Amino acid sequence: MVSVITLLSDFGTADGYAGIMHGVILRINPQAIVVDICHDIAPQDVRAAAFVLSTVYPYFAADTVHVIVVDPGVGSERRALAVRSPRGVFVAPDNGVLSYVFARESVSEMVHLTDSRYWLSPLSGTFHGRDLFAPIAAHLSLGVPLSDLGSTAQDPVHFVIAEAQMREDGSTCGEVVHIDRFGNLVTNVRRELLPVGQALEVHIAGRDVKGPIKAYALTADGELLALVGSSGYLEIAVRNGSAVAALKIGRGTKVVVTPTVDSTQKVVRT
Amino acid sequence: MVSVITLLSDFGTADGYAGIMHGVILRINPQAIVVDICHDIAPQDVRAAAFVLSTVYPYFAADTVHVIVVDPGVGSERRALAVRSPRGVFVAPDNGVLSYVFARESVSEMVHLTDSRYWLSPLSGTFHGRDLFAPIAAHLSLGVPLSDLGSTAQDPVHFVIAEAQMREDGSTCGEVVHIDRFGNLVTNVRRELLPVGQALEVHIAGRDVKGPIKAYALTADGELLALVGSSGYLEIAVRNGSAVAALKIGRGTKVVVTPTVDSTQKVVRT
Amino acid sequence: MVSVITLLSDFGTADGYAGIMHGVILRINPQAIVVDICHDIAPQDVRAAAFVLSTVYPYFAADTVHVIVVDPGVGSERRALAVRSPRGVFVAPDNGVLSYVFARESVSEMVHLTDSRYWLSPLSGTFHGRDLFAPIAAHLSLGVPLSDLGSTAQDPVHFVIAEAQMREDGSTCGEVVHIDRFGNLVTNVRRELLPVGQALEVHIAGRDVKGPIKAYALTADGELLALVGSSGYLEIAVRNGSAVAALKIGRGTKVVVTPTVDSTQKVVRT
Repeated sequence: MVSVITLLSDFGTADGYAGIMHGVILRINPQAIVVDICHDIAPQDVRAAAFVLSTVYPYFAADTVHVIVVDPGVGSERRALAVRSPRGVFVAPDNGVLSYVFARESVSEMVHLTDSRYWLSPLSGTFHGRDLFAPIAAHLSLGVPLSDLGSTAQDPVHFVIAEAQMREDGSTCGEVVHIDRFGNLVTNVRRELLPVGQALEVHIAGRDVKGPIKAYALTADGELLALVGSSGYLEIAVRNGSAVAALKIGRGTKVVVTPTVDSTQKVVRT
Repeated sequence: MVSVITLLSDFGTADGYAGIMHGVILRINPQAIVVDICHDIAPQDVRAAAFVLSTVYPYFAADTVHVIVVDPGVGSERRALAVRSPRGVFVAPDNGVLSYVFARESVSEMVHLTDSRYWLSPLSGTFHGRDLFAPIAAHLSLGVPLSDLGSTAQDPVHFVIAEAQMREDGSTCGEVVHIDRFGNLVTNVRRELLPVGQALEVHIAGRDVKGPIKAYALTADGELLALVGSSGYLEIAVRNGSAVAALKIGRGTKVVVTPTVDSTQKVVRT
Repeated sequence: MVSVITLLSDFGTADGYAGIMHGVILRINPQAIVVDICHDIAPQDVRAAAFVLSTVYPYFAADTVHVIVVDPGVGSERRALAVRSPRGVFVAPDNGVLSYVFARESVSEMVHLTDSRYWLSPLSGTFHGRDLFAPIAAHLSLGVPLSDLGSTAQDPVHFVIAEAQMREDGSTCGEVVHIDRFGNLVTNVRRELLPVGQALEVHIAGRDVKGPIKAYALTADGELLALVGSSGYLEIAVRNGSAVAALKIGRGTKVVVTPTVDSTQKVVRT
């Protein structure tokens, strides 16, 4: 039996924080395969971690334990949770970082992690990744039932995931929900909301961007473009460049997507 | 039997140096579990690597082989060492990077790595992580005795670890010994030097910071705070911000910690 | 049997792209050992990835599957390739990233990856690392023959690897081919082109740099130096500093290496 545990955090790669979690896990379950998803989430950026997690967990086996430690409330009264769903087990602070999981998966079991027998002792006030989340994940990977780890939890913290809306005139309103390492602007407009096979314009930050194209390479260097990205969302990008640098906007910026009748004539070039 | 080897270096994450070490190790011991602690130690910053190592090794099993390659003296006459202690085996250049290990652990065996049979050939003058430290770690993980790898070594290079001092007036003098990725200023004032359950002020860079609080979340955003961090040291931090950015000071900056009789009246707010 | 798969990309460490590839691989081959070489190749810098790869693969076992995803042409007509050589199997877009492999290894088999049974479905237009290269690597690591994955390919895209040239006057002309994380300037002048045991001057960017020295530590801090680096190429470096910062030049900058008769008298100090 292979036990996979993934780690997602804002610990960065200049300190030992993530490495320590590997050590804690391997001492409890030396057979665990520990995968670093990424540790360069911007410090305390719970929403970025939530989005990145949403793109990752569907590609792991259903018995994978995902540990997410972006935890500005560490040491406060915020709860620590373990959550079982048909598409993975999640161990994280109760601060909204599992919002996409709650929105998309049917949670079969959720536990408030209160049983200190499964933690390191003493529990610090600043590093529950080491003292609580890592050992919990290791014990889960060994088959400890969720119900042993604490009491059933209700009403987890979650933020509202802004959903793109289709309007009566056929256009779709959405917003930028994530900016990735390439400077691509990922919106909340899912592929399913776009008219199949039809050209469209994306209005963002006073610009009109044509699309959707099928691949970055199908446009010129430096040109703004719109395409359906790898997570199934409409993205604004610049081929071999950075859309966030070109538009100087941030997460939450509104986008309006308008179908155009004939892409060869009506698309406004940026 | 599971053999864990950890890697800590200043190789960065834009080149293949760390990856090459994985390859060298796996060719010698395909069963080894290789854990990247971090590779973004500032180039040639031996003291930062020493500190990060000190926070990491206690959380790994005692038979773990820790490889540290921050090695500005590579190719010179500096020795390469393997060091056995009850809490881990350490393979590193003899440049002080093991100073905390020497200060805290009882070394049972220390060898100057001189037997070239356990190295890659030819030995380069610039990359002993690949040619010497990685293969040595792999052989150690296979059970090769330290004594086979070279001759007994004495008097390793080590820097003096500045210890915080308690003064007659009850205050404690220490200094900043590490700055982490969040901009937290880690001092050398250990929890044991702080009066239990008593409020205190930390004087640093002309500021008076109250503390210790139990968790980052118990103060306001942007406010300087003092707390005992995850490694057991007093830290100066800013909630959801960076203390190093706020104070613009560096490693070695002095701190003076003064108990206050009544925290509700005497603490000077920053 | 141990199956090692390495990953080299420009995905960065702030998103989940690399982690997703781990998940895809582990679902197909839970026994695979997945090694992150690095994910901080500059975005779309195919040449940097090609160079880094050339320094890494020789240190892995010959049955290792190396996956390289620096892929500005993703979703276009560019082919995806799997290449078998006596020193490794390579899976990558057909964009030149394997140029060093083609120049140095005898390719025994090369396949255009066309059989969609071995991909994730649907195939996105933007993330073939997840949808095609990762699953292909996992299937290869399980022993699927290359010939099952597509049709034999010819004439892969490759860039000309600039070779240093020896001139009649005994000097050697080359250029900077890579800049590493330390700011070292790696040239294409191989050790074999340098006169054994003789002092030399390296002319670069209007400066004369003496060398080769055997190790960084054998010169003064901040001084430009030339040495044969860990990959066997002449490098221009600054001890405890950055040569690229000192010279403000880029990849492609010419270097001329001139032997000097008597190093004690004729070397021009920088």
